[in-house]
This record gives sequence, structure tokens and C-alpha cells, in this order.
Amino acid sequence: MRMAELSRETGVSVPMIKFYLREGLLPGGERTSPNQARYGAAHVRRIKLLRAMAEYGGLSLADIRALLARLDEPGGGLHERLGAAQRTVMPHREPGEGERWEAAARRAQELIARHGWRQHPDSPAMRAVTGVLASLDELGYEEMLTRLDAYAEAAGRIAQADVEAVASAPEVERMVEIVVACTPLGDTLVAALRRIAQSSISGRLFGEEGGKGEEGC
Amino acid sequence: MRMAELSRETGVSVPMIKFYLREGLLPGGERTSPNQARYGAAHVRRIKLLRAMAEYGGLSLADIRALLARLDEPGGGLHERLGAAQRTVMPHREPGEGERWEAAARRAQELIARHGWRQHPDSPAMRAVTGVLASLDELGYEEMLTRLDAYAEAAGRIAQADVEAVASAPEVERMVEIVVACTPLGDTLVAALRRIAQSSISGRLFGEEGGKGEEGC
Repeated sequence: MRMAELSRETGVSVPMIKFYLREGLLPGGERTSPNQARYGAAHVRRIKLLRAMAEYGGLSLADIRALLARLDEPGGGLHERLGAAQRTVMPHREPGEGERWEAAARRAQELIARHGWRQHPDSPAMRAVTGVLASLDELGYEEMLTRLDAYAEAAGRIAQADVEAVASAPEVERMVEIVVACTPLGDTLVAALRRIAQSSISGRLFGEEGGKGEEGC
Repeated sequence: MRMAELSRETGVSVPMIKFYLREGLLPGGERTSPNQARYGAAHVRRIKLLRAMAEYGGLSLADIRALLARLDEPGGGLHERLGAAQRTVMPHREPGEGERWEAAARRAQELIARHGWRQHPDSPAMRAVTGVLASLDELGYEEMLTRLDAYAEAAGRIAQADVEAVASAPEVERMVEIVVACTPLGDTLVAALRRIAQSSISGRLFGEEGGKGEEGC
């Protein structure tokens, strides 16, 4: 199909499609003349994926570019490809320093060990956990710090569902795509459901009019 | 203390503190002369909160401004203040349209009803859930759509821990602060722990060298 049809099919404007092409987020079409190219079903799908990740994955274009690069890479072992995709879905972070950071890093290691997980302390995910724990400690939120295992247990259930979803996919390409697309979409889904549940639970607990708060109407 | 000392105390540069003041993110100090002001412990704490939310809450300055406004508001009922804080921690979203969106909205309502929650379909959180479900449907990720209850159950556990943390705080001001600060920090914590758990579970399931993947070293 021509670019105009690609635009109709996906609901994404022609200037935006040109932007995706220029930014290398969308592979070029098959050239049919110096000024025209033909696009196919793979382009339609890639554009829908781009839009979902930008709108509901909470990702910047730079993050999306890094993620999509995983889809376009040549093969390799299943575990390697999944691992590479997984590492990309967590943005890089600089480590902190000082006693508070070191104490938070130890606390993070102890937390994941209690749940049977292992991870290098310099991974982006461990740095994110360490940074959050250091912040909670600096701000004195003992109310949260004493409940870390509840958060870890919930994260473990989400990860279990993620891995089952990936394992149920019929082939490696699709498994990688599910890691790349569904990890950020899943973050947004869980964050939104968390707020809905908070509001209902909080309404039952603190509601002054029998729970007729923002969740009741 | 003077601004230079406030900078030393918090590790945030003087130009950045001036930026926070200019943007209304930090209340002004007590004027001691036309060119000087005195700052106190509340300023130190606010700057630490700002830094934590920007670095580990994944929030833009506009989001942080909206959130901090909740801390500076005059009193009101506990449920109202907590509800207002909760609503602010989810960015506004425009609704979608069309059959796919309507079907996703029904699916979202059924999902939250199964978990005993209620929420207006036009709330930002319900729009986020609906948008994610519509995207998963459009992209054909049945592997995820058949596991929504696992994500909702995990979100419910996180929310339960959140509400318990808030309920254990000694007074209303602190409860509101915990909602405002710990909801975004908690999203980042759970997202990071989710990736750590994914990598460990995935390594056990798919690992080709006895699980010695990225989680092993």
C-alpha cells in the first residue's frame, strides 16, 4: 500500500509516519520509484506498536527506539534474546554514593534474596530499587520500608504472569515482541489498577459517608 | 539558614534551588532583607521530596507541581484529602472512541468488578486501563489478555499495602504526603522488582546453561 493508505489504516498522520521513518523507528518501504514506496502489513503492525508504547507505555521516543531495536535484531538463543529485551525495558541509571546508598543497596539485595531472586547490584533494575529505598529512608517513610515484602511479593506475581504469557507464545519472535511491548504496557496497567484498588480500599477504610467517595459515582 | 547552606544540606545546587523557587515548587523563605531570605527544615524536606520524585518517581515537573499542590492545601475531611491526592497521582488522559475502545471499557469494568472495586469510567485510571486493554486487543496479545486477573490481583495486594502504610501514619498531613510521594515511588519500586523477578523466573524456565544468564553473575 502507499503511504496515504498506511495512514488511513493506522489512523496515524502522514507527517507522523514520515517522522517515524526519519527517526528509524519504522523500517522503510519497498521502493517502487525514486519518490514512492510500498508498505505492507508489517508496517501497519509496527505503527500500532509504536503508538501503543508511546501512549500507554509511558516511554520516550529514545526508550522506544532502544526497545524496537531488539525486535529487528538477528537471532540468538532464546534466553539471550529474552534477557537482552528485558534489560532494555529498564532505563539506564547512574549509581548513587555514600553510606545511605550503600545501606539501601544491602537492603535491596536482602529483599530480592528473600524472594529467591538474584541480580547484579549494578543492573538498572537494582539501581532503581536501591534509589527508591534510599529515598524512602532519607524521607523517613518507615510506613513503606516495613512493607517492602508485600511489594516484592506482588511484583513476583506480576512477573510470574509475564513469564507465563511469554512462554505461551508460539515462537521466539513473538516472545521477544511480548517482552518488549507488554512490559511497559503492563507497568501502566498495574499502576492504574493499583490506584483503582487504592481508592476502593481507602473508601471502605476512611470513607466518611459509607464509602461514597470518588469510587462510588 | 541561608540559601548556600540549604544547598549544602540537600546536595542540590543554588541555581536549581532558585529554579524550584521560581517555578513555585518550593515555598519562599522568610525575608530578612530585600536580597536575602532564611530557610528552615521544611525547605530541606521539600527539596529532598522534589529530588526523590523527579529521580525515582518517573514524574515530569508539571506532574510534581500538581502533586505538591496537594500538600500545601488547607484541611478538609480525611477521605476527601486522600481522594484528591490519589486522583492527582494519575495523569489526565483523553478518552478513545470506536468499537474497540467501547469493548475495552466494558472489559475494564468487568475486570475491576470481579475484584470488588468500583470506579467511574471517565477517571484517569479507568481510561489508562481501557487504553492498555484496547492496545493489547488491537495488537492481538491474547497471551496477556487471558491473564488480566493475575495483574489485578497483584495490583490489589500493592494497594492493600499502600493503604495500610497510609493508615499507620500518625496524622493527616503525613498521610497525604505518603500518598503523594509513595504512590509514584512505589510504581518505580514494583516495576524494577518485576524485572528482577522476571529475569530470575525466566532464567529458571528458559535458561540454556542452568540459569546462568544475566541474573547469575
